[in-house]
Amino acid sequence: MRDDHMPHAAKPDLKDPAIYPHWSRETLRYCDTDKQGHINNVAFSVFCETGRTQLLLEPGRPLTPPGTFIVIARLVLDFIGEIHWPGEVRIGTGVTRIGRTSFHLGQGVFVEDRCVAIADSVLVLADEATRRSTPLTDDLRSRLEVRGISVPV
Amino acid sequence: MRDDHMPHAAKPDLKDPAIYPHWSRETLRYCDTDKQGHINNVAFSVFCETGRTQLLLEPGRPLTPPGTFIVIARLVLDFIGEIHWPGEVRIGTGVTRIGRTSFHLGQGVFVEDRCVAIADSVLVLADEATRRSTPLTDDLRSRLEVRGISVPV
Amino acid sequence: MRDDHMPHAAKPDLKDPAIYPHWSRETLRYCDTDKQGHINNVAFSVFCETGRTQLLLEPGRPLTPPGTFIVIARLVLDFIGEIHWPGEVRIGTGVTRIGRTSFHLGQGVFVEDRCVAIADSVLVLADEATRRSTPLTDDLRSRLEVRGISVPV
Amino acid sequence: MRDDHMPHAAKPDLKDPAIYPHWSRETLRYCDTDKQGHINNVAFSVFCETGRTQLLLEPGRPLTPPGTFIVIARLVLDFIGEIHWPGEVRIGTGVTRIGRTSFHLGQGVFVEDRCVAIADSVLVLADEATRRSTPLTDDLRSRLEVRGISVPV
Repeated sequence: MRDDHMPHAAKPDLKDPAIYPHWSRETLRYCDTDKQGHINNVAFSVFCETGRTQLLLEPGRPLTPPGTFIVIARLVLDFIGEIHWPGEVRIGTGVTRIGRTSFHLGQGVFVEDRCVAIADSVLVLADEATRRSTPLTDDLRSRLEVRGISVPV
Repeated sequence: MRDDHMPHAAKPDLKDPAIYPHWSRETLRYCDTDKQGHINNVAFSVFCETGRTQLLLEPGRPLTPPGTFIVIARLVLDFIGEIHWPGEVRIGTGVTRIGRTSFHLGQGVFVEDRCVAIADSVLVLADEATRRSTPLTDDLRSRLEVRGISVPV
Repeated sequence: MRDDHMPHAAKPDLKDPAIYPHWSRETLRYCDTDKQGHINNVAFSVFCETGRTQLLLEPGRPLTPPGTFIVIARLVLDFIGEIHWPGEVRIGTGVTRIGRTSFHLGQGVFVEDRCVAIADSVLVLADEATRRSTPLTDDLRSRLEVRGISVPV
Repeated sequence: MRDDHMPHAAKPDLKDPAIYPHWSRETLRYCDTDKQGHINNVAFSVFCETGRTQLLLEPGRPLTPPGTFIVIARLVLDFIGEIHWPGEVRIGTGVTRIGRTSFHLGQGVFVEDRCVAIADSVLVLADEATRRSTPLTDDLRSRLEVRGISVPV
């Protein structure tokens, strides 16, 4: 049983900016607003994608073994506060759990220090040929562990 | 205790197109594709929004009482299959649960008869003045019940 | 001199729906709206892309010769009227001019019969290897001519 | 005759970053890519909107007189080079011409120092009540002049 390799017992509080090993920034776009006057909820999915793709990006040394790719299987997105244009958001991202063929990311979206959303995503390693899930390699596991969310004790 | 007003005991299978009382259509846009060659996952959030906003839209007779509005509090989105441009998706939507100040929607996104995603959303009735949740009125409850997902027995 | 192969002397009136050989439909999305309450101007660029990509799409028998692709070099977009969600737009598209290495498309975006935008685009045939423009082949020219805008006399 | 108030005789070279009085930044989003592998052309319209809305934004002291608003009437967008994710673009923006009821913006989109697009937009001052164009006020004219593109002699 190799589940939950993160070195923590407690569940991380995704609203706490202190837990995140990785940060991205995103500029709010005027076209992200909607007729309710605030940033449309679809933009929150974009912010999660930004944090996710940047966490996993390592130019010149891809995280995924040759012949594999990472797909998102599930996104659980909690909307906590409204955002208004103009401005920026900061997205904190980290690995919260590592399974056999998949892993979880925890994320928080912040406007300055205000948490406006949190997200939990499930990402699966897939084989390009079979299009099915395939076990995480040891190299990928150790590189995900480095990106783990640290839970204060 | 007024939770779970839908007339069903079993959990609906959101992959089954037969359960949905409401359908929307969405055209795939070329700009919905991404560099992986398929429709980007953010578009799936758009499809959920389409079904959600159209289910709740009743021009001339708004579902929400004056001084209130509906906000999305949570989106749980399961990605089941890839979609490729060009084409269309059909989005089935229905109310799965009615609580005191909130309700749940179940959704399925289909390319022809293939289910490519399912979603569970939590929507909250909020007061424009206080910006806080407020109890669903009887009128709103009965109109949500009409939009309920029927579970085959 | 091979410019302007379309069989017309007069300039087409792009606001006239009768001139278009090809039509696309696009569903307005809630997230296409912006804080001004109407459909954001970026969506108009999307509608032009929809008409353009669908006009040029011929599954199983691509318009472009092997080793070439079509790129947009210029978009001239005139905003004529506002659009409001919900609804649909119809996009009329046709070839207005054929040059040596490029051609022009004329487009009109309509809400029912109301013209809300017109566009003139310049598309260039490019070579995949050199990334530079390359002459239109006779086959491509004749297939573009079939998609030409007819100007009433 | 009050046209062309900018203090220049020559046409500005919009590819020259030195001419711009105002700069914006935009993060490239993964979902801005398309199946051709590069940033989709619709994102270029977004970048123009970013520069335009930020140039005209003056929180606490709106550029437009009460009861009026600015609308885009025309966008002429020249695509010069491809952009690839990840990265940022810088958008230079400035007023190139001031007319009676409208004005022009010139823009350049840059990846580092490489110009990937230029744009010319026509913006019109409109009356909220009549929804028609209305003359630029002296205050607006002088504030646009400050944002003018300077042409080197």
